[in-house]
Amino acid sequence: MKTLNVGMIGYGFMGRAHSNAFRKVNNFFPLDRQIVLKAACGRDAAKTKSFADTWGYEAIECDWKKLINRDDIDLIDIAAPNNVHAEIAIAAAKAGKMVMCEKPLAMNADEAKTMVKAVEKAKVPNMVWYNYRRIPAVTLAKQLIDEGKLGKIFHYRAKFLQDWTISADVPQGGPGTWRLDVSVAGSGVTGDLLAHCIDTALWLNGGIDKVSAMTETFVKERKHALSGKTQKVGIDDASAFLARFSNGSLATFEATRYARGHKALYTFEINGENASIFWDLHDLHRLQYFDHRDAGYVRGWRSIHVSDGDHPYMKNWWVPGLQIGYEHSFVHQVADFVQGLSDGKPASPTFRDGLATDFVTDAVLKSAKTQKWENVKKA
Amino acid sequence: MKTLNVGMIGYGFMGRAHSNAFRKVNNFFPLDRQIVLKAACGRDAAKTKSFADTWGYEAIECDWKKLINRDDIDLIDIAAPNNVHAEIAIAAAKAGKMVMCEKPLAMNADEAKTMVKAVEKAKVPNMVWYNYRRIPAVTLAKQLIDEGKLGKIFHYRAKFLQDWTISADVPQGGPGTWRLDVSVAGSGVTGDLLAHCIDTALWLNGGIDKVSAMTETFVKERKHALSGKTQKVGIDDASAFLARFSNGSLATFEATRYARGHKALYTFEINGENASIFWDLHDLHRLQYFDHRDAGYVRGWRSIHVSDGDHPYMKNWWVPGLQIGYEHSFVHQVADFVQGLSDGKPASPTFRDGLATDFVTDAVLKSAKTQKWENVKKA
Amino acid sequence: MKTLNVGMIGYGFMGRAHSNAFRKVNNFFPLDRQIVLKAACGRDAAKTKSFADTWGYEAIECDWKKLINRDDIDLIDIAAPNNVHAEIAIAAAKAGKMVMCEKPLAMNADEAKTMVKAVEKAKVPNMVWYNYRRIPAVTLAKQLIDEGKLGKIFHYRAKFLQDWTISADVPQGGPGTWRLDVSVAGSGVTGDLLAHCIDTALWLNGGIDKVSAMTETFVKERKHALSGKTQKVGIDDASAFLARFSNGSLATFEATRYARGHKALYTFEINGENASIFWDLHDLHRLQYFDHRDAGYVRGWRSIHVSDGDHPYMKNWWVPGLQIGYEHSFVHQVADFVQGLSDGKPASPTFRDGLATDFVTDAVLKSAKTQKWENVKKA
Amino acid sequence: MKTLNVGMIGYGFMGRAHSNAFRKVNNFFPLDRQIVLKAACGRDAAKTKSFADTWGYEAIECDWKKLINRDDIDLIDIAAPNNVHAEIAIAAAKAGKMVMCEKPLAMNADEAKTMVKAVEKAKVPNMVWYNYRRIPAVTLAKQLIDEGKLGKIFHYRAKFLQDWTISADVPQGGPGTWRLDVSVAGSGVTGDLLAHCIDTALWLNGGIDKVSAMTETFVKERKHALSGKTQKVGIDDASAFLARFSNGSLATFEATRYARGHKALYTFEINGENASIFWDLHDLHRLQYFDHRDAGYVRGWRSIHVSDGDHPYMKNWWVPGLQIGYEHSFVHQVADFVQGLSDGKPASPTFRDGLATDFVTDAVLKSAKTQKWENVKKA
Repeated sequence: MKTLNVGMIGYGFMGRAHSNAFRKVNNFFPLDRQIVLKAACGRDAAKTKSFADTWGYEAIECDWKKLINRDDIDLIDIAAPNNVHAEIAIAAAKAGKMVMCEKPLAMNADEAKTMVKAVEKAKVPNMVWYNYRRIPAVTLAKQLIDEGKLGKIFHYRAKFLQDWTISADVPQGGPGTWRLDVSVAGSGVTGDLLAHCIDTALWLNGGIDKVSAMTETFVKERKHALSGKTQKVGIDDASAFLARFSNGSLATFEATRYARGHKALYTFEINGENASIFWDLHDLHRLQYFDHRDAGYVRGWRSIHVSDGDHPYMKNWWVPGLQIGYEHSFVHQVADFVQGLSDGKPASPTFRDGLATDFVTDAVLKSAKTQKWENVKKA
Repeated sequence: MKTLNVGMIGYGFMGRAHSNAFRKVNNFFPLDRQIVLKAACGRDAAKTKSFADTWGYEAIECDWKKLINRDDIDLIDIAAPNNVHAEIAIAAAKAGKMVMCEKPLAMNADEAKTMVKAVEKAKVPNMVWYNYRRIPAVTLAKQLIDEGKLGKIFHYRAKFLQDWTISADVPQGGPGTWRLDVSVAGSGVTGDLLAHCIDTALWLNGGIDKVSAMTETFVKERKHALSGKTQKVGIDDASAFLARFSNGSLATFEATRYARGHKALYTFEINGENASIFWDLHDLHRLQYFDHRDAGYVRGWRSIHVSDGDHPYMKNWWVPGLQIGYEHSFVHQVADFVQGLSDGKPASPTFRDGLATDFVTDAVLKSAKTQKWENVKKA
Repeated sequence: MKTLNVGMIGYGFMGRAHSNAFRKVNNFFPLDRQIVLKAACGRDAAKTKSFADTWGYEAIECDWKKLINRDDIDLIDIAAPNNVHAEIAIAAAKAGKMVMCEKPLAMNADEAKTMVKAVEKAKVPNMVWYNYRRIPAVTLAKQLIDEGKLGKIFHYRAKFLQDWTISADVPQGGPGTWRLDVSVAGSGVTGDLLAHCIDTALWLNGGIDKVSAMTETFVKERKHALSGKTQKVGIDDASAFLARFSNGSLATFEATRYARGHKALYTFEINGENASIFWDLHDLHRLQYFDHRDAGYVRGWRSIHVSDGDHPYMKNWWVPGLQIGYEHSFVHQVADFVQGLSDGKPASPTFRDGLATDFVTDAVLKSAKTQKWENVKKA
Repeated sequence: MKTLNVGMIGYGFMGRAHSNAFRKVNNFFPLDRQIVLKAACGRDAAKTKSFADTWGYEAIECDWKKLINRDDIDLIDIAAPNNVHAEIAIAAAKAGKMVMCEKPLAMNADEAKTMVKAVEKAKVPNMVWYNYRRIPAVTLAKQLIDEGKLGKIFHYRAKFLQDWTISADVPQGGPGTWRLDVSVAGSGVTGDLLAHCIDTALWLNGGIDKVSAMTETFVKERKHALSGKTQKVGIDDASAFLARFSNGSLATFEATRYARGHKALYTFEINGENASIFWDLHDLHRLQYFDHRDAGYVRGWRSIHVSDGDHPYMKNWWVPGLQIGYEHSFVHQVADFVQGLSDGKPASPTFRDGLATDFVTDAVLKSAKTQKWENVKKA
């Protein structure tokens, strides 16, 4: 069997999630390439070594440029903070490597465009880790929409609610909290959480034409974990927007880290002429489905336990009724990426798809500033 | 319009529930008789007067024999404790009155048989207040079963869980707690709660052949509210049994007043070859329905919000989506009773139906003593 | 006992709901006035007579001006379409009658202001039928907020989703569908559904400063039920807005009649620093409550079955665990109105409270046109 | 780091689940031994080879006796059908290997006793794969009980419902359906599903004194997958029993493969004096908890999303709110087994614990035959 040698950059939360996916995928999906965890890369040698040992990487690097230039690496996976995505991805593309990049693609759409240009010029396979598309229940939603089960779409609503930054004692910057440092993250919940909602929405419901948004920073100052100094918070703590899709449907989107009681409540609902769909990350193995074509007196929202062999990806796991979890969406993404290589059909979301989401988040942040409706550029 | 003059015996919880039903039914259901609240009867004149004033009864009586002998009374409603059901019902039947009787029909099946004999000999319309049959979701369950949607039945399971007697300080006897005094109630949860489960089960799933039961009295002694003396508790605090139905299905039944967290959690589930049904009194306006004939990948338990015009009884209430509550089941029962008079087709459950439930509760209590499987007599 | 003589205008859905409330309230709530259903008023004599007979009104009137001028009427209840609220209410106030008016108060805020002026000048008790405040679970939400359980509020989100006008065959105008005729209804879902959401929100979370809205009319033309002619639809089928409350919290609001699968799904959620609350009209007897002060490992959303004696209004109904329904909110409103008369403390929402909601709906409709953020006037 | 060399027997559903656990555990749990997948063993060389390649076993064996005699194997894992558990386990113990055995431990308690004797005589670490103890929500339930949060226990109820054998076309015997062949499985749902319920119950609620049971075989004959002949079905399709625990609590247990709509609905509920607990395998990441000590008006069942760092095992996985699935319970079991080796404190359930469950299932099957209450032997 051919091998696919992975070079991983980053060893945080996402470094673990991606590594787990690369390590598991051949156990569950019949692919024609064997993934090899070739090298892990991080600035701190000791931590990188420990990470590499835990996950079985054959070697470590402390300079990502060296990693990129190694001949024995086929694919560079960027699991580092947002502010280094572009530089690494462009260099990797130039070096002829396949590139997988954690979301959001870039600090903003302008930067993302340079990344798209680089991978398309180099003709290297590329992908952004919008993993939620591949939760089986979400993939099933896509399937139902593609089959036309919903009919004309009237409404889309999505939200992503967390509560981990309510305390003013949570610092900004540094490991674990770099998402609160605007110079590293680019934005707050807009790029972190709404980006997920938007990627799914564009996939399920097509393009967004325009938005009207508001953002808020509830805690104005936080200590910086690296400098120790209290400084102004530059990110958005909460972000909500109204939107009109190209297909004529109306939408509301909202994300926040101040919704007490929710750890990672990403939900979306789609209302079509004939049927509706609802999904919730906190019970990610279920899809709620209402079909108006059922006889009136037995119509009801169906709670589909998406764990059966005829559900997306599920025949590769256990037996009906036994649920999988969050991490499996990453496994599916690797499986599809590798299958795409074999088929010569790149799996989405590509960098170009990731740019489309960045165009929306840019418009959201702009609208929040101008307090006007803003049009969304198209990728 | 003809009138139907009601004489009500009892002014407790059930006196109120029945009165409310009699008073409301003509507002919502097009019947050919106007209910008139003619007289309320209780031993305590002042309390009876207050009750009569609240509900608009034209008069009061303090002796139920007088009430029964009044010419202007068409129907005697027995909302008094279990130990007086038989005497009153038999006398009322002899006086040619229609009789509605709170459940359970009697202290035991032998007593119930005398009541059945009396009303059938007198040919007076008669009914037992097993109100849960007429929660719209439960009636819908019956409709689905009658339509054959479930196919061959394999399993029936029901439970009725409460938690109001966990404290040893709850007394037995007296108003509000006579259900803990075996001399008044006949039995504990078996006659009080399981009787509801059994009535519904016999209606939905046919006869029960045999049972194996266990009962328990967790708090062995309680103060008597009337005497003030601590005395042995004679009722069953908890009761559970295995059963085999005549149709070949297997069942489990359970009732208790020691299930912390449940106020009145009556649930039943029926599993058929093709479909299953689940209902829960705590969300009484919903019926859960699973239909295996739905396409596999969109199969799921449907949560039917039983509030639409094509659901049983619901076109008489508000608009779709707006739920009704517990009390409405009594209104439906009166509506059906009166409609039965008009149609010449007595509405069930009749006293004979009530006897069938008493045969089961008798077998349950016997099995708990003998520790053997006991056959159930047929009404 | 003193009497309170009611004159009812209208015999549709709301005429029934209000009549039921007036007729039941003395059965369940100890008040010092006995409600008397004195006269029902409608233009169609036969229909009015039938309605009066069903509900026990002593007499009928076919001209509301006559009703208002009867000396034996204490309270005028306006259950007629929106476009006649103002004229009737103002005349009733001038005639010294108490006035209860179905929501929304008026066709717009300007009209509503004249009504507020009239009742305040005449010093007559007045109330708007925003009934959802008095669903016990909603009243409990208010209680928890007033107790300070939530702490600083970050987010409010509400939606009211229906699906009954998706078919283009639903007419506009006429009985049952006048809500689709802008000349009678004033607006579409903004005044009909969002008004409910807004009234609750103002009550629970204080004033709204500004909004950014969008509206849509999905079906552009409908036949008029009275004229039989197809004509342009003037109402909004869907309406959504972002809002900023005076207390610094952010909000999203949405209403539509195009959300397949929802009959009357009014939900709201409030996220505070210490606790959060969620409520859903489709399970109106439950309140979801999350308290961050619970020990971390046993923290969870509590599903409170609001049916116990220590819950608002519930001790007047049945026993713990037995739920009430939609109609009971109207009974509570009458009970509080009458109690307010006795206490000399007018119950809310008064006409002035109703005006506050109209200021918001006016701003919403304006913003949808101007495509700008609009400030909300204060009542 | 020390290694722990695993020899796996069986390559079916459980062979995969165990292999996944062995392969993942060092990625997530800091242990002092590195698991090595040394050899996989099965009778079919080609299939065993394919399995070994998929999972990364270094070698294969086709004779389990050879595997057991290899010096480089530390631990024998038995993932083969029930009828070979005893022979293999006893031989492995004699060879001085640690033994992990899939549940139920044996065909019956007599056989299980010989296995207990063997491992205890050989003093080899041993464990039965009752994996559900280590679903974090179930482990949390144990923790709450051990902390005394529930108080005196009144009720225990458990059920395990499936629907995969309703069709008479499902064969017995052979791969995938050997659980329907009594000569291989020992019993039907009693040993397969109820055994899980019983193991959890003994762990959470202590010993069971006596049981009254019923079983049923709905489909009397099925084709045998290997012989192709239609023959009598010897297993129980459904099994239910009443039980009394040593602590005075009452219980109902039920398992079936004929409950349409349920794939693997294992649920249990425990009602204590002060608190209650409910868990459901179909939403395995949640624990429902009701605490009567909460203030009355905000009491409710808490839906605990068991995904936070202070929940059992969860700090080793992702971030709060992100759920894990079924397979992770096996990972936890390996982690605890290895940690037990390091600590010198064997992790449960040991073979002796597995025997305790077999005593209960024996009593259940006996009671179903004798139609009497049967006492349970103690391990």
